[in-house]
Amino acid sequence: MGSSFGEIFKLTTWGESHGPALGVVIEGCPAGVPLAVEEIQLQLDRRRVGQSKVTTPRGETDRAELLSGVFEGVTTGAPISLITYNRDVDSSKYENLRDVFRPGHADFTYWAKYGHRDHRGGGRSSARETWGRVAAGAIARKIIATAGAEVYGFVRELGGIKMESFDRDEIERNIVRCPDPIAAEKMIEAVLAAKDAHDSLGGIIEIRALGVPPGLGEPTFDKLDGLIGQAMLSIPAVKAVELGEGFAVTRSRGSQSNDSFYAENGRVRTRSNNAGGTLGGISTGEEIVVRIAVKPTSSVARPQETVSTALEPRTILVEGRHDPSVCPRAVPVAEAMLANLLADLLLRNRAARI
Amino acid sequence: MGSSFGEIFKLTTWGESHGPALGVVIEGCPAGVPLAVEEIQLQLDRRRVGQSKVTTPRGETDRAELLSGVFEGVTTGAPISLITYNRDVDSSKYENLRDVFRPGHADFTYWAKYGHRDHRGGGRSSARETWGRVAAGAIARKIIATAGAEVYGFVRELGGIKMESFDRDEIERNIVRCPDPIAAEKMIEAVLAAKDAHDSLGGIIEIRALGVPPGLGEPTFDKLDGLIGQAMLSIPAVKAVELGEGFAVTRSRGSQSNDSFYAENGRVRTRSNNAGGTLGGISTGEEIVVRIAVKPTSSVARPQETVSTALEPRTILVEGRHDPSVCPRAVPVAEAMLANLLADLLLRNRAARI
Amino acid sequence: MGSSFGEIFKLTTWGESHGPALGVVIEGCPAGVPLAVEEIQLQLDRRRVGQSKVTTPRGETDRAELLSGVFEGVTTGAPISLITYNRDVDSSKYENLRDVFRPGHADFTYWAKYGHRDHRGGGRSSARETWGRVAAGAIARKIIATAGAEVYGFVRELGGIKMESFDRDEIERNIVRCPDPIAAEKMIEAVLAAKDAHDSLGGIIEIRALGVPPGLGEPTFDKLDGLIGQAMLSIPAVKAVELGEGFAVTRSRGSQSNDSFYAENGRVRTRSNNAGGTLGGISTGEEIVVRIAVKPTSSVARPQETVSTALEPRTILVEGRHDPSVCPRAVPVAEAMLANLLADLLLRNRAARI
Amino acid sequence: MGSSFGEIFKLTTWGESHGPALGVVIEGCPAGVPLAVEEIQLQLDRRRVGQSKVTTPRGETDRAELLSGVFEGVTTGAPISLITYNRDVDSSKYENLRDVFRPGHADFTYWAKYGHRDHRGGGRSSARETWGRVAAGAIARKIIATAGAEVYGFVRELGGIKMESFDRDEIERNIVRCPDPIAAEKMIEAVLAAKDAHDSLGGIIEIRALGVPPGLGEPTFDKLDGLIGQAMLSIPAVKAVELGEGFAVTRSRGSQSNDSFYAENGRVRTRSNNAGGTLGGISTGEEIVVRIAVKPTSSVARPQETVSTALEPRTILVEGRHDPSVCPRAVPVAEAMLANLLADLLLRNRAARI
Repeated sequence: MGSSFGEIFKLTTWGESHGPALGVVIEGCPAGVPLAVEEIQLQLDRRRVGQSKVTTPRGETDRAELLSGVFEGVTTGAPISLITYNRDVDSSKYENLRDVFRPGHADFTYWAKYGHRDHRGGGRSSARETWGRVAAGAIARKIIATAGAEVYGFVRELGGIKMESFDRDEIERNIVRCPDPIAAEKMIEAVLAAKDAHDSLGGIIEIRALGVPPGLGEPTFDKLDGLIGQAMLSIPAVKAVELGEGFAVTRSRGSQSNDSFYAENGRVRTRSNNAGGTLGGISTGEEIVVRIAVKPTSSVARPQETVSTALEPRTILVEGRHDPSVCPRAVPVAEAMLANLLADLLLRNRAARI
Repeated sequence: MGSSFGEIFKLTTWGESHGPALGVVIEGCPAGVPLAVEEIQLQLDRRRVGQSKVTTPRGETDRAELLSGVFEGVTTGAPISLITYNRDVDSSKYENLRDVFRPGHADFTYWAKYGHRDHRGGGRSSARETWGRVAAGAIARKIIATAGAEVYGFVRELGGIKMESFDRDEIERNIVRCPDPIAAEKMIEAVLAAKDAHDSLGGIIEIRALGVPPGLGEPTFDKLDGLIGQAMLSIPAVKAVELGEGFAVTRSRGSQSNDSFYAENGRVRTRSNNAGGTLGGISTGEEIVVRIAVKPTSSVARPQETVSTALEPRTILVEGRHDPSVCPRAVPVAEAMLANLLADLLLRNRAARI
Repeated sequence: MGSSFGEIFKLTTWGESHGPALGVVIEGCPAGVPLAVEEIQLQLDRRRVGQSKVTTPRGETDRAELLSGVFEGVTTGAPISLITYNRDVDSSKYENLRDVFRPGHADFTYWAKYGHRDHRGGGRSSARETWGRVAAGAIARKIIATAGAEVYGFVRELGGIKMESFDRDEIERNIVRCPDPIAAEKMIEAVLAAKDAHDSLGGIIEIRALGVPPGLGEPTFDKLDGLIGQAMLSIPAVKAVELGEGFAVTRSRGSQSNDSFYAENGRVRTRSNNAGGTLGGISTGEEIVVRIAVKPTSSVARPQETVSTALEPRTILVEGRHDPSVCPRAVPVAEAMLANLLADLLLRNRAARI
Repeated sequence: MGSSFGEIFKLTTWGESHGPALGVVIEGCPAGVPLAVEEIQLQLDRRRVGQSKVTTPRGETDRAELLSGVFEGVTTGAPISLITYNRDVDSSKYENLRDVFRPGHADFTYWAKYGHRDHRGGGRSSARETWGRVAAGAIARKIIATAGAEVYGFVRELGGIKMESFDRDEIERNIVRCPDPIAAEKMIEAVLAAKDAHDSLGGIIEIRALGVPPGLGEPTFDKLDGLIGQAMLSIPAVKAVELGEGFAVTRSRGSQSNDSFYAENGRVRTRSNNAGGTLGGISTGEEIVVRIAVKPTSSVARPQETVSTALEPRTILVEGRHDPSVCPRAVPVAEAMLANLLADLLLRNRAARI
């Protein structure tokens, strides 16, 4: 209860930041999908730490081992187990955090909920848990590709700097994953400046899905919108999500915000896409457009006021190895979550009609 | 799959806008909760149509019948079934929509998913389905009250008009449920003007939960944030959701956005509440603050371009009885969904420790 | 939690024996199934009370109302709600049971679990709850029929009297649903004698499914065998279940009990069917054969030793209107549960391969 | 879907007989349970191969590694991941089975369901999968012990030889786990004779739970009886399950089979326990008594008639390393499944009352 996502294509992640290993078990992957561990590694490498000067120097290789569910290069329908061993664990920096709650982190709430906690590197609440989400997402991408769909994402805004042009090819060319190379430069400068100031930055990520067939989403509670909400807000540091025009649509009128239908090549299309690819919680066939708000990294090496587990006042300074902004690395995580969701809904949709 | 919400306190809604009846079955309500149908009716009346000049004139009484799960005024632990019969059904206005897709509505997507559909009043996709959510929410409110928690909501912004003052007592005193009486006047004018112009308005609703104990939420996928996302984005017309500072937090720095801890009366508190009452997906004990974007009502009595089921171009004008803005009536629905979620998480949390 | 069965084709029953009504909500029925309420009523009438001298005289018509999920005679994919109002409720016979536990019934365990209970006619634990299972089963039968499958059942043994011949056509011709007309006569005599003696009888029911395609069942916990076990042992009064040769197979040897494979008309068949139609928890395509043990009706109008809710000794004599053996009426219930399960597994199986 | 068991205390097993490793992830284990890997190993060793002359000589050590969910010797509420690497894998014996279906095994049904399969050692359908069930069961035992409950089991009958006396202390003293040492001798002889004859034997196992508090089980579909049925019939080779008197109760009368209530030390007790510890699907507080039928091992080194994947007739002789009867090793598996179920229901029951 809580560590699983999906109904048919269902992933269960496990593992702590400073435990011996992390992993994911994927149930419900259909048999017959060709799958090599290298395809999974490719996505994991996009999320990996230590990639550039804007990410943490923690030196994990994040190498995936594929332990089950694939036989002679093809999925068998059995659960797929993927594991990575933690190598570069340095818990010494965390010893002083054993009895104190870091502001902005889950230290206090885990302690309140469970009564005791693994304080090393955030334990279970660490974003290292997202390793398994990305690993599963690599498989999900293959499933949705069979229906012609793909997912990609990018940083729209970082530290208040907005992208002003869009070239999809630029995204993976810069270390902040921004489709506007000029804005990217500014973002990188801002991140480095924040890092120097022992501070951190937030930003806005956009995730898009192309080629999604109409019909995905299960009214009324498992609407595509609702499950996108869950998927995105389950990612560490994400505090808001919007589809299509999102908050901006509240300032338009129905006669403007409704997307008109027309027919094209035997398909129903809409002239605009204010709705972001869903109507009534079901995909329309238009691009699915999702934006998420990522808060500034909570770990900042500045003095912060807090309390100990004994409720005594403390001032702490969070050292350790942290990303000054998690936005660039959150892109593949958010992509993976959308892919995981779409794979699940694609399989669920097979039961929609007799 | 799709019509149920919750793991322990689980509701399943059923029924169509123009079918004979609508209802909800609630599983997992603990035994021992005193419950009278009048308590449920009280909440249903807040959501009911025909309440004022800003809502649709459809004259449903929405009267609830309590058919099971309660014996001698107390819940028994058995499923609770609640039903309301549709009385004021006028399907004649919809006959011309049998073979055409209304822009902004779920007509096309239901047709794409299921192959055929009940076109009368939106069928299953109608917001009339939310009757059951509000009915369940009335019970959920009683459950969370046993832990000292309560939920309320209001309209923050409507048609671009923002609330500028806050007085909780004002909310239910005006027909747009705005805590600022001066803004409320302007909002009402705007709604009536939109109605006269055969158009519609959107807005922003805020829902708050007070007295929620620390510890609710199930990492990592059933985080409080994630499930709030699902709950809110499963409400018709909602296109975005944010917690605490939401999108705005992306423009601050970690040293600013982190909420400092301090101790007060033996409890851990935070000096600010930028996080909106959650950390690591678990409630902190601070106020839970959620904002949602409600799009303008899709039904507008203006000519709109669309296509028929045979993919031929059409121009339609959606008549029928509609709210020019659903914001005021969406308040009790959003409140109910947050209450339903919190009740479920409160019960799930009982298994957190041995 | 507890009142639902199935993952995709999911039924949720609600209602108490002496409450105002009983019902079932079916989620996940695919769109496009032609469905008339009369088809459901046909199955309900097979389970109905007051059918013959071997069943209780309680005079319920068990008339089903179809409230949602069907439009113009075809399922829409939306939840299907079915309801029946209790008409012939006579709670007076139960007033003396308010504070005492009937042996063999759920009175004590409900009280232990929930702290209070609806004592009238067993409340939620009454076999009247099976109304909804049979109603759902009527729809499930239509779904599995699209794959060529059907389900039927009969009484093999009653009060120790065994069937000695088998003619499927005989089953519905006698009031004990035995395929051997000579044994049927003896069974009827035995039931009437037990009734005169204010006592009750148990028996063994066999349920078979024909035409089930190979491949149904989800290893390793949702094996066809495992879910048949759950389905059958969730029926009131059922205390054992076996597949194929069941307990008898424990006395054979592997070389005998293994069913040999051969090919016939391009299909893999087995020469014997000791396994009862499953291997590794997945259907083989052979007949599915299930036998269940039904205990004697717990309500007997003889003095029985028991205790009150205050733990004082009592002697009670359970009056009211009861079946002297529930076997004949349990046949359509067990058939329905197997049909419900197979419908669900058929839909789940659609996701087995890419 | 299929590889998970439980709602709150939920286990997900993964891995194939001849894959690199096997494992289990346990979600929902409450925080605060002291747990050492040695406690888990103790149970795993009871199930391990190569223990005696009546089990397969495959030389797995079955050593468990504990990878997550435990910090400083205490569970944290996070998922617990346990893994064992396969060491003594010899797939050469299976190469000739690549394109042929072994009678009594899941070869054909996996092929029918998934289109291709891992033929080595049964792949996913191998009883090696039960490693994870036993590992989880070791944790479940600790949870139910907090409520005073414990589980144990034994072989009642093997190859037609019945136990005739009962001494719990004898069970683990002999290699067939029979509580009657004289019958045990005969059973061992029978197993060795069957082994010499290249054949196999089945038997009947009994599992009991002591000290289970009244109130466990979730009517109406998640009855204790129903879930025991699922748990037991999901174990490889199990073909039948009965509670209490089971099939025998069908030959008694209600006046005999009802267990009379009396009060003892402020507790409600029953004078007999024909029901096997449940009423209405909820535990009574009496001993839970379950019996299961285990079929003879399907692998027999005798010529058997079968077909190939090309549907051509074949005669095969199944070599490899197999138990001539799986009964002794199935005891800890069945115990574990009952413990897993009871742990889950104990946690679910926490939400039964407000």
